[in-house]
Amino acid sequence: MSAPDTSALIAALLDALGPTAVLAGADAPARNHNDCSGLPPAPPLAVVRPADTAGVATTLRLCSQHGVAVVPQGGLTGLCGAARTAGGEIALSLERLQGIEEIDPAAATMTVRAGTPLETVQQAAADAGFFCPLDLGARGSCSIGGNLATNAGGNRVIRYGMAREMVLGLEVVLANGTVVTSLNKMIKNNAGFDLKHLFIGSEGTLGVITRAVLRLSPKPASSQVALCAVNSYADVLTLLASARQHLGPQLSAFEVMWPEFWEFANTHAPQARNPFADDPAVYGAHVLVEALGTDETQDAERFEAWLGQLLEEGVVPNAALARSLSDAKAFWALRDASGEFHPLWPGHLAYDVGLPVARMEDYVIRCRAALAEAYPGIDSFYYGHIGDGNLHIIAHLPGAPKQPKDGVNAVVYGLVREFGGTVSAEHGIGTLKREWLGHARSPEEIGLMRLLKNAVDPQGLLNPGKVL
Amino acid sequence: MSAPDTSALIAALLDALGPTAVLAGADAPARNHNDCSGLPPAPPLAVVRPADTAGVATTLRLCSQHGVAVVPQGGLTGLCGAARTAGGEIALSLERLQGIEEIDPAAATMTVRAGTPLETVQQAAADAGFFCPLDLGARGSCSIGGNLATNAGGNRVIRYGMAREMVLGLEVVLANGTVVTSLNKMIKNNAGFDLKHLFIGSEGTLGVITRAVLRLSPKPASSQVALCAVNSYADVLTLLASARQHLGPQLSAFEVMWPEFWEFANTHAPQARNPFADDPAVYGAHVLVEALGTDETQDAERFEAWLGQLLEEGVVPNAALARSLSDAKAFWALRDASGEFHPLWPGHLAYDVGLPVARMEDYVIRCRAALAEAYPGIDSFYYGHIGDGNLHIIAHLPGAPKQPKDGVNAVVYGLVREFGGTVSAEHGIGTLKREWLGHARSPEEIGLMRLLKNAVDPQGLLNPGKVL
Repeated sequence: MSAPDTSALIAALLDALGPTAVLAGADAPARNHNDCSGLPPAPPLAVVRPADTAGVATTLRLCSQHGVAVVPQGGLTGLCGAARTAGGEIALSLERLQGIEEIDPAAATMTVRAGTPLETVQQAAADAGFFCPLDLGARGSCSIGGNLATNAGGNRVIRYGMAREMVLGLEVVLANGTVVTSLNKMIKNNAGFDLKHLFIGSEGTLGVITRAVLRLSPKPASSQVALCAVNSYADVLTLLASARQHLGPQLSAFEVMWPEFWEFANTHAPQARNPFADDPAVYGAHVLVEALGTDETQDAERFEAWLGQLLEEGVVPNAALARSLSDAKAFWALRDASGEFHPLWPGHLAYDVGLPVARMEDYVIRCRAALAEAYPGIDSFYYGHIGDGNLHIIAHLPGAPKQPKDGVNAVVYGLVREFGGTVSAEHGIGTLKREWLGHARSPEEIGLMRLLKNAVDPQGLLNPGKVL
Repeated sequence: MSAPDTSALIAALLDALGPTAVLAGADAPARNHNDCSGLPPAPPLAVVRPADTAGVATTLRLCSQHGVAVVPQGGLTGLCGAARTAGGEIALSLERLQGIEEIDPAAATMTVRAGTPLETVQQAAADAGFFCPLDLGARGSCSIGGNLATNAGGNRVIRYGMAREMVLGLEVVLANGTVVTSLNKMIKNNAGFDLKHLFIGSEGTLGVITRAVLRLSPKPASSQVALCAVNSYADVLTLLASARQHLGPQLSAFEVMWPEFWEFANTHAPQARNPFADDPAVYGAHVLVEALGTDETQDAERFEAWLGQLLEEGVVPNAALARSLSDAKAFWALRDASGEFHPLWPGHLAYDVGLPVARMEDYVIRCRAALAEAYPGIDSFYYGHIGDGNLHIIAHLPGAPKQPKDGVNAVVYGLVREFGGTVSAEHGIGTLKREWLGHARSPEEIGLMRLLKNAVDPQGLLNPGKVL
């Protein structure tokens, strides 16, 4: 294949979409040169910003005709490099494809354009008397299209599921420009294959999401938060089983903090308040439990009675119940101390692995020991959404001129393979974890992924080099 | 392509799997000649019943090598012909691939073989202290593999989702015999494409499901059931919105019965008990509302208070609360009167369409009128899982020597297209609804389905003629 004539492509794009939509060469905004992966920026051939689905289709059709690769871009908040251009591709930004097209109160759905910020989606749902349960730190800048393309997770997966579970319908443009509009609003629809799931979580490698129908939830009327200190991981599991049974579908967060993380949080989290400061005991783990309900008085009584029972039984030797919004915020601030790693140690290593819940403690023990042996003096921190099987790990070797990334990767992901876990619970693969995909997926699984990629994008022009 | 040498294939299958697993020609059991679609039976070339995944892989590999088509069979309870052989294929029955391999209490998962009956899965979950929310009338004879291959629905979708939502991991054998084992137990796993969703609901056309990891739910500790009489569909929607808001995630069924169905149920349901028998008012609809909770006393109080408020507000002019299990069963018996259509009118026409919730009443009015005009004297009955957008329709023309199937199909599905609905909410497409798929899916959607089918099964040997 001869080298593509990129100037002819730019001319065709300008002709079809106009100068507002096509920013070529030096006009390509610097922000579109990168995502939040920490990789070096790389300039695209041009940034193309269509304002509608037809414009996205035109862009992809022209790129396909000219044989030029395309990197879809949402809010550019991804951590794994999936939205970063390697240099020389067209960056297809959805930033102008914004807006909420419809809220259907009877169906409890919202039809929204891909470039709409998550926070706008949340606010519009709230204004209509509903609740958008998807939530993550980047809510103000990430886009709903990016959330779906990466199947974003967040704190409330245990109750509401991943981003995938919120989607009833999807509009996608394929690599050749074909628009597949499947804006289903019904919870049940078994008319043929369920195509949306192919695109959700495929990180822009199979199609570009342009619109979606989201399922909205009822607004929770009550919220309970408690911090629990427990002696052992066995007790964490007992607490989890009890929370599932007694709080049932109200259980909305179950966040475990191992001792190193707990200490870090109490030292560094700006708004944290340790409710156990006066307790001289040393605990094996701390757990933040949250429940969202429908009745303020009854739910609070039930939550307190449940916690009291666990204290009495000794499963939870110490616990603090949030009595105010300010308490709840202070408890969450401990868990959200994870945001302090970056300013403190900009080059630190961060992981979002997944593990079978029963084996998580063994994993932590093995990983902690292996890292300490390989890198004496290294700090490692463990915390995460344990009810979902999701463990976050932070590693940092003080004083090292360069963090031992390859070596720590090998330890963390090597153990993930041994324990039957996953190298990405929620952040995705992008380019950063591509070489480790085989630690979580078999050759047959990866072979099937390639087969699907080749079928849907035979030229290999859509986000090449990402995931696979 | 020359005609396949079927005797060589049978010999190879017998050689590889032995005579217990291969029942050829006249030895093929009559039950494997059909499913529950009402189509005429058709004998397969042979019934192959492997006892493990390797046997399934061998069967598919040999069939692929000999160019012979394969029809996967579970419990044979499907209503649309997806498991029926057209004659001359290999019927690949999963009936010997039974058993529960593991229940993991910490992860709240069950790993199960595809041929296991749903009722066995439910019982095993209960024995381990969990709840398997998937439930349908055929529970004793349908298999979990068939439930997943067809993405089964049932009565509790509004709370627990379709069968798809219960699946964390899947093992599938492709048409060429490749085994793709993806028995993930984690709720969060974003390592590459989520392959399982491709196979769930594809009715055995893309791969044969051999094992699955199911997500188990906590056992509900309380159950509330009420029958509500309402004046109009607008009030049905008010009641639905109120139930979503006040019962929240406990709302587990919202079954609406239009007047014709209500009258039929009270006349024909054997164990039904009309709690409104003394009320002379004529209502626009009756709604069965069920909630499953975690606290018997509190949940009952809350449910009753909620219902009392609606009675006071006039949204629900009359309501009956189940005070005992016997009451609850009698209320459900009214809704389950749908089971009486078949013995009464064996040739009746049955539909499981889906519609946007807001437009359902208009659909019923239009459909009722159009059927009455086209077929004077026709009976039509409307009921369904309205919270999920799923409407069931039964039509029967008394005295007709043959029910006017094609004409009624044209009315029902023609209006579905006009209203933006689906021709199958839960039963699937199979062969019976194949010609109507285009009423619910666009050419681009169907084109993408074909593209995927050709990629995964390039010889077109896996359940040919089904869905597409």
